[in-house]
Amino acid sequence: MSKYFSRKPGELKAYVPGEQPRNVQQLIKLNTNESPLPPAPEVIDAVAAAAQKANLYCDPTMFKLREDLASIYGYTPDHFTLGNGSDELLSFAFLAFCNKEIGVAYADITYGFYSVLSRLYATDTKIIPLDAQYCINPYDYSALGRTIFIANPNAPTGIALTRAQIEGVLQANPDNVVVIDQAYVDFGAECAIPLVKKYDNLLVINTFSKSRSFAGGRVGFAVAQPELIANLETIRNSINPYNVNSLSQAAAHAILQHNDYYMQNCSVIAQNRAYLTKQLDALGFTTLPSMTNFVFTRHPAISGEQLYLQLKQRAILVRYFDSPRLRDFCRITIGTREQVDALLDAIRSIL
Amino acid sequence: MSKYFSRKPGELKAYVPGEQPRNVQQLIKLNTNESPLPPAPEVIDAVAAAAQKANLYCDPTMFKLREDLASIYGYTPDHFTLGNGSDELLSFAFLAFCNKEIGVAYADITYGFYSVLSRLYATDTKIIPLDAQYCINPYDYSALGRTIFIANPNAPTGIALTRAQIEGVLQANPDNVVVIDQAYVDFGAECAIPLVKKYDNLLVINTFSKSRSFAGGRVGFAVAQPELIANLETIRNSINPYNVNSLSQAAAHAILQHNDYYMQNCSVIAQNRAYLTKQLDALGFTTLPSMTNFVFTRHPAISGEQLYLQLKQRAILVRYFDSPRLRDFCRITIGTREQVDALLDAIRSIL
Repeated sequence: MSKYFSRKPGELKAYVPGEQPRNVQQLIKLNTNESPLPPAPEVIDAVAAAAQKANLYCDPTMFKLREDLASIYGYTPDHFTLGNGSDELLSFAFLAFCNKEIGVAYADITYGFYSVLSRLYATDTKIIPLDAQYCINPYDYSALGRTIFIANPNAPTGIALTRAQIEGVLQANPDNVVVIDQAYVDFGAECAIPLVKKYDNLLVINTFSKSRSFAGGRVGFAVAQPELIANLETIRNSINPYNVNSLSQAAAHAILQHNDYYMQNCSVIAQNRAYLTKQLDALGFTTLPSMTNFVFTRHPAISGEQLYLQLKQRAILVRYFDSPRLRDFCRITIGTREQVDALLDAIRSIL
Repeated sequence: MSKYFSRKPGELKAYVPGEQPRNVQQLIKLNTNESPLPPAPEVIDAVAAAAQKANLYCDPTMFKLREDLASIYGYTPDHFTLGNGSDELLSFAFLAFCNKEIGVAYADITYGFYSVLSRLYATDTKIIPLDAQYCINPYDYSALGRTIFIANPNAPTGIALTRAQIEGVLQANPDNVVVIDQAYVDFGAECAIPLVKKYDNLLVINTFSKSRSFAGGRVGFAVAQPELIANLETIRNSINPYNVNSLSQAAAHAILQHNDYYMQNCSVIAQNRAYLTKQLDALGFTTLPSMTNFVFTRHPAISGEQLYLQLKQRAILVRYFDSPRLRDFCRITIGTREQVDALLDAIRSIL
């Protein structure tokens, strides 16, 4: 640490992404919840066309994309803004809806970025433990007097709240923003976006990284009533008005024009998830009920770390978390049917 | 403003980018300092190839790009990090090198984002006026006890400090970081990067938006000694470890492989700048001595706003700034020779 750093030792704890090995050709990569299915061919054409004009700035208002989203989700364009991935939108939300007086609340086991951001912005934090079944109990989120971040479905558990449960949290916190971070929603959970019309305290954050096969392109979008979006826009325009570049804007437009292709892919992933879960069950694993493109699973005979290490020796990457309630588990991304079968073969040979 | 916004009315003042009309086909766009020259053809191929794998995350360490930069600038890869445009790196620098105790200092007339960020992060600010010739006087930047941001060349004046002058500021502020934001350096000013080896308090921020014809693709890079870069990395990894997406990483790699093409383009722009300046001179304009891809120029017979408006009627976009010391001027991006001639024709018809 240089003597110039404005932060105290240990004040920040940067997010640690899953391994991203530079050479993935020989690997079955099931560790960062990417889609195993490629972008639609039209996306490649759109990106190449945009590259030819990359000497010009992108549209800082992202108007075309907000129109696309408005048409898909049934709102006007001023209900939307976009980010350089949903991570950036989470950061904007901290800057817009938290301060010295307004703290945050989130689960003890959830997306790791909430705690990273709360440290970075020195936000007073209330941690709410999951229940014994690894579920968020919505009754724990009543009148907290804080901005609430809920990953739904949650990660790394994969378990989802229903829309009615989310509505309960919104009603129980009318004076605070409730952020529903639904990165994985397209794989089977109930989407919170229809609630936006009823609740001015709801901010729904979404990503193209999972269901839209675009983790590398970094596009996230936020949905809320226009006043809340305007607040996010003030922050966005105070940091990086050109935050979604012209290549990703062009790609995202093409993606939204081919929404059916991606939603069909989500069905394939859900089928593969059901198949994997059933096979793991037969092998003695206990798998939490996942509504995502991954499963969180444990086996009485092997720790998460050991399973991770032994799969890695077989060129299969999964992820484990070295913390008390999680270390029995591995988080395994749902791949293609062929990848799932290769994983199962490897697990059989390990057990 | 929603009742949920954590900021007071008027607390923030978002940056206002130059107009980005959605349909630029009929316009000569000389208002946001883009390059009129297209990306190298290899950039398009690289982006299209990257798009095919956009379902996978990008390399969060950006290792290949840091190797490219190391090879071009003669440092090791740990002297570099990259941002989603240099704007994002400026924001990271505020978060890394300012806090409640460590304020900032910058010129009254300079890149507008410094004041936007200092408001956003509530940083104590010292504003240092340019001298009567619109120059930064390096002697005004002695022992300030603050993090210093200097745009060099400065914008919108176009005037550059010499490397020796920058060295003076570095020596006069050994206990504080000096950020040299050299977005326009490739058009003729002295580059500060060679000073990195001597000064552990120097952070040089650069962009691909101007000289590398990649404004739409959003890539900036920072150069400093490894300890300073590590501090920036802690911030980057606390906000968005995948901040430069896979499309832009691939493009930036191709751009750096064809560095000669871009540096040759900079010579063309410098020639066009000399030509435009001479012609403006003949028309009675006073133009500040520019080391950038724009000129800042005024005419005794017409205000900046009037010239802007009348050029806009003729489908030529330039930029003016409505503040006391600037409103006589227009800032005009250097275009192709054809664009410069069209601009001069229009100006002649206006005068």
